[in-house]
Amino acid sequence: MGMARRIVGVIGAGECDETVSVMAEEVGRRLAEHHYVVLTGGRTGVMEAASRGAKQAGGLTVGILPGNDPQDANPHVDIPIATGLQDARNAIVARASEILIAIAGEYGTLSEIALALKMGRRVIGLGTWHIAKAVQVVETPQQAVADVIRYFETH
Amino acid sequence: MGMARRIVGVIGAGECDETVSVMAEEVGRRLAEHHYVVLTGGRTGVMEAASRGAKQAGGLTVGILPGNDPQDANPHVDIPIATGLQDARNAIVARASEILIAIAGEYGTLSEIALALKMGRRVIGLGTWHIAKAVQVVETPQQAVADVIRYFETH
Amino acid sequence: MGMARRIVGVIGAGECDETVSVMAEEVGRRLAEHHYVVLTGGRTGVMEAASRGAKQAGGLTVGILPGNDPQDANPHVDIPIATGLQDARNAIVARASEILIAIAGEYGTLSEIALALKMGRRVIGLGTWHIAKAVQVVETPQQAVADVIRYFETH
Amino acid sequence: MGMARRIVGVIGAGECDETVSVMAEEVGRRLAEHHYVVLTGGRTGVMEAASRGAKQAGGLTVGILPGNDPQDANPHVDIPIATGLQDARNAIVARASEILIAIAGEYGTLSEIALALKMGRRVIGLGTWHIAKAVQVVETPQQAVADVIRYFETH
Repeated sequence: MGMARRIVGVIGAGECDETVSVMAEEVGRRLAEHHYVVLTGGRTGVMEAASRGAKQAGGLTVGILPGNDPQDANPHVDIPIATGLQDARNAIVARASEILIAIAGEYGTLSEIALALKMGRRVIGLGTWHIAKAVQVVETPQQAVADVIRYFETH
Repeated sequence: MGMARRIVGVIGAGECDETVSVMAEEVGRRLAEHHYVVLTGGRTGVMEAASRGAKQAGGLTVGILPGNDPQDANPHVDIPIATGLQDARNAIVARASEILIAIAGEYGTLSEIALALKMGRRVIGLGTWHIAKAVQVVETPQQAVADVIRYFETH
Repeated sequence: MGMARRIVGVIGAGECDETVSVMAEEVGRRLAEHHYVVLTGGRTGVMEAASRGAKQAGGLTVGILPGNDPQDANPHVDIPIATGLQDARNAIVARASEILIAIAGEYGTLSEIALALKMGRRVIGLGTWHIAKAVQVVETPQQAVADVIRYFETH
Repeated sequence: MGMARRIVGVIGAGECDETVSVMAEEVGRRLAEHHYVVLTGGRTGVMEAASRGAKQAGGLTVGILPGNDPQDANPHVDIPIATGLQDARNAIVARASEILIAIAGEYGTLSEIALALKMGRRVIGLGTWHIAKAVQVVETPQQAVADVIRYFETH
């Protein structure tokens, strides 16, 4: 019966091309329009684009940082959580998200997808690793966020 | 040049008496009035009282939970960060806070104070462990929050 | 100039069929014959089989456990490291191994492969996830261990 | 009914004077003579002295390192466990030890004592923080190790 906000993780690489960046930004914006908190790894690339999009829509953004310094967060993170755990922070990104949208991504993203699936979290994939039937593949940011909305209607 | 909100940790035991609870609530309320994000371990006792106080003043609250389930947070936590790290989450509480107010507390709180001091974080103590000169002892919630304000004016 | 023993991680699922178990046991045995420490997640399935094989050859075994209790380790683990980190312990398995052999496996194993690659660790795959060219695919335990030996000759 | 070795944590600061170093070395030596595995944080000071003592008696030493590189271990660590967790590794040191001997120490040691007590681990103190009745104070390395032996006779 708490008032906790619903948290959606957006995961992807720290470097990405313009197409991926535009997708991540739209995902962030649409999530914020539906009042979800956008949680990322707090750094550059997909993480920054999703956070920027969320802020454009007046949303709230959390960054789970690998390092020690909250100032390592990109400028669109409202709540920088410096963990100091380095790569082990990927497990926190997966755990703290009720559902995740994976956009493109490298090994770090793959580890987050795998950890999230291990934890029983739902993962929606947008141009990302095709590793398992358990990742729900979509084609557009709009579809990804529609799936998130549908998920929360029943959970 | 980010827009990140300033985060103040409030640490203390999961069980506390009425006097301590009232102090923690006032600390939370005063921090929120000054627009600081109130970060706690997300559970009961001091953590819940500080979060409740912050929400009374319209503030924003984060809970760094030891377990796997965001629903373990007390009802006054806006952003529940389920870490699954159990006691190792105490290091995240210390690291993610720019400055901490310790109120009473048991061994868990002591570990957070010690970790915070190790990390070079400032710790303000209100009726808590007297372990080191490095903990800045105050007598009232008002003094504790005044010290926080002073800290951020110069950091 | 330390005397530290070389550590090889053997990763794979907590449940596995007989064929996989036999392979994991042979990997463990061969690693121990070459005096490598065999590090696993300390539990059942591939982890137990690899540890059992290593002990048959008089080797030394380490288990990085997700839970709180050293007694959760399988009976072939000499050094049970209870972490209490749950799934985040996968990052420790990857980090603490200088090189890893992945045998079959589910999502947990996939997360360890991905984390290891992210950390720049070499991963040798035996009937496991085909996720990237970076995983060096082999067909037999003998080949896997030969690759490990070759790796340490040059690192 | 496993064959797991009994693990004793020895904790203390990364810098220490000669008197403390001699004590730590004797603690390590006596523990190894009784076939306990000596687990430390793997670095310098008390950690190194205890490991050196253990190796003089032919013992086995484990180092739970804060950083990414097993080569950061002192030269008397047999099994370097690189965690990459930085200060959060202190929780692993506490958790992985069945019982701990604290020798002198700074804030990091204090955090390990507090975490160990929180986890219900027994802590024996040798010239360390006097924080609680729960720490069993002894005067000599001989007494510390005698207490460890007594503990394992009943646990």
